[in-house]
Amino acid sequence: MIQELRKRWNALQQALAREGGDAILITTNVNLFYVSGRIFSGAAYVRLEGDPLFFVRRPVGLKGGNVIYIRKPEEIAGHLQQRGIPMPAKLFLETDSISYNEYRRYEKIFDPRVVCNGTQLLRGVRSIKTIYEIGRIMRSGVLHARLYERIPSLYRPGMTDTELSIEIERESRRLGSLGIFRIFGQSMEIFMGSLLAGDNADAPSPYDFALGGAGLDASLPVGGNGTPLTDGTSVMVDMGGNFTGYMTDMTRVFSVGKLTDRAYRAHDTALEIQRRIEQTAAPGVPAADLYNLAVRIAADAGLSDYFMGHRQQAGFIGHGIGIEINEAPVLAPRSKEALVPGMVFALEPKFVIPSVGAVGIENSFLVTDNGVEKLTHCEEAIVPLQ
Amino acid sequence: MIQELRKRWNALQQALAREGGDAILITTNVNLFYVSGRIFSGAAYVRLEGDPLFFVRRPVGLKGGNVIYIRKPEEIAGHLQQRGIPMPAKLFLETDSISYNEYRRYEKIFDPRVVCNGTQLLRGVRSIKTIYEIGRIMRSGVLHARLYERIPSLYRPGMTDTELSIEIERESRRLGSLGIFRIFGQSMEIFMGSLLAGDNADAPSPYDFALGGAGLDASLPVGGNGTPLTDGTSVMVDMGGNFTGYMTDMTRVFSVGKLTDRAYRAHDTALEIQRRIEQTAAPGVPAADLYNLAVRIAADAGLSDYFMGHRQQAGFIGHGIGIEINEAPVLAPRSKEALVPGMVFALEPKFVIPSVGAVGIENSFLVTDNGVEKLTHCEEAIVPLQ
Repeated sequence: MIQELRKRWNALQQALAREGGDAILITTNVNLFYVSGRIFSGAAYVRLEGDPLFFVRRPVGLKGGNVIYIRKPEEIAGHLQQRGIPMPAKLFLETDSISYNEYRRYEKIFDPRVVCNGTQLLRGVRSIKTIYEIGRIMRSGVLHARLYERIPSLYRPGMTDTELSIEIERESRRLGSLGIFRIFGQSMEIFMGSLLAGDNADAPSPYDFALGGAGLDASLPVGGNGTPLTDGTSVMVDMGGNFTGYMTDMTRVFSVGKLTDRAYRAHDTALEIQRRIEQTAAPGVPAADLYNLAVRIAADAGLSDYFMGHRQQAGFIGHGIGIEINEAPVLAPRSKEALVPGMVFALEPKFVIPSVGAVGIENSFLVTDNGVEKLTHCEEAIVPLQ
Repeated sequence: MIQELRKRWNALQQALAREGGDAILITTNVNLFYVSGRIFSGAAYVRLEGDPLFFVRRPVGLKGGNVIYIRKPEEIAGHLQQRGIPMPAKLFLETDSISYNEYRRYEKIFDPRVVCNGTQLLRGVRSIKTIYEIGRIMRSGVLHARLYERIPSLYRPGMTDTELSIEIERESRRLGSLGIFRIFGQSMEIFMGSLLAGDNADAPSPYDFALGGAGLDASLPVGGNGTPLTDGTSVMVDMGGNFTGYMTDMTRVFSVGKLTDRAYRAHDTALEIQRRIEQTAAPGVPAADLYNLAVRIAADAGLSDYFMGHRQQAGFIGHGIGIEINEAPVLAPRSKEALVPGMVFALEPKFVIPSVGAVGIENSFLVTDNGVEKLTHCEEAIVPLQ
């Protein structure tokens, strides 16, 4: 693991150097996991040169030459001084993630000349996965696909969306899902994923997910809402796959009975969008171009009004994945990112067809040296439940 | 619902008045849910007088005279001006929750003379529940207890902690659990709760939960770790109960075979602590006194080394509950809070006995006018699994 961590430290130090930074203080769980390989309560201090220092409050018992136990962050200054490490002039803090009051506390401790956005620095570094990370994501993809293969066997006639979802959740946990769903930013919440049946797929959501759903309660208005799975409804399953600490994202559509012709045509259009993007996506290709390509194909099929939602439409067709479900790059019209080998993203062209429900596809892809490679393999046609 | 919301607005306005504040801008999900009764993307603006204004980005279609659709928070200033509402001189922002960069954005929009800590203002107001909220918590407690009654029927010999946990999670969802677990602060993460068997109960955790557990992966080091449920081990179930948007907290202990005498004695001591605190707790009683009482009873029983953990010990014995699992008050030695009618808290005296596991109890209590009332009723002895 130490060699793996060194790669990440090097990537972060190179990013720091590019930005003229002296150090970054990392205090959020996701980024602590990235730079240390585990979650702890405390802070990681990464400088331009040398190994990071890990200032740990909890748990007791961590070993290692870089581990320094503290009771509060104010002690960090003394430890740096003891080691002859000068205070940083240009310090990166996770300014998109840490609270205002935390920020002020760290500012007082380090008193830097300038503070920069470490959240975005880390998002950039994390967007290009190491081989080890790609392995973790691939493993999650294999288990995720295995889960989806079992979905038809979990269905019983007369079920509601919630009842089927509960059986899928259980099967996911039995296959090793850790259950939690890490999302960047604090405004998006969801349980293990969503299962959208019939017109509930068109219920607009407060969250920035591709599709909504009314949910079971005003405190969590997303996903299934107790809709009975009756004849002629589509059942879209978009359950997160967190089997390894790294997420994969994957959506498949099932049907109860037969859907309308328009629904099948929209599903085929989603598959066509996926095919065209698979052919086009490669290092150097702007993420925005992929979005525009998808929008054009949907328009050519006369389905613009249903693309990425109907009453409320999402403004993206894909997103980076990793420790969190919404990493860089974002496949959206104003995205400034281009694909780079080692990026991993989910592509999710979807349509919401009134009185039928949601159709479409989602898979996770790795950007390779000359194209993209799918990581989530499982039947892509609409599978009838019976 | 509007009368219920008015009570909350009044309580918040009284708190604002006490602090000499002009307004509070609320943008986090939990507090938006509190002041509006639902989750939306946007902001609630509560002034000293008059109804709040709800600035909504998503979802589309919300109705009401106080609902104003915006694309970005910068538009709020213009809307206030249009309505002849002066800019606030003393503005509360959720400074313990919103990111530094969000803070700077709101500061620019409102340009107040002074900004105060709205997170703590809201935590104070939310710590005293309305009758409606108490009803939601009571309902969650009933379903939570029903879940725990079913636990023995979910056990099969040869199971691991994870396997039993998965069956409890499923049963919880079937009873209506929403699944998610809202925690104040961003450093604590957990799936639906924890099930700790044997010595895994003593694995120290990075999180500030009462007990730890190694978990299944370094990315989520908490709770069950695949420990087989073998003869002589205790099985502590501490699953969150979020059935209504309001959480209850409840722990029960089960045994595989017979435990050691010390384990039973420690369990009885936990029940004794609960009994004594139930007799003592009442409006006006300092939360710190209840903590000290518990510590004294554990010491008198010669069990201090095992109280609230062994290798790593937690520094509290209870905590407020509500929309989040860790609200005010905290039952800890340095707590400055005293009980007030309408507060709801979880009391969790627990012991970790090496080579046996965790024993103890947790229930949720309402502070009434003259004492406390238990909300989570279910067998409290150690129940053998067979």
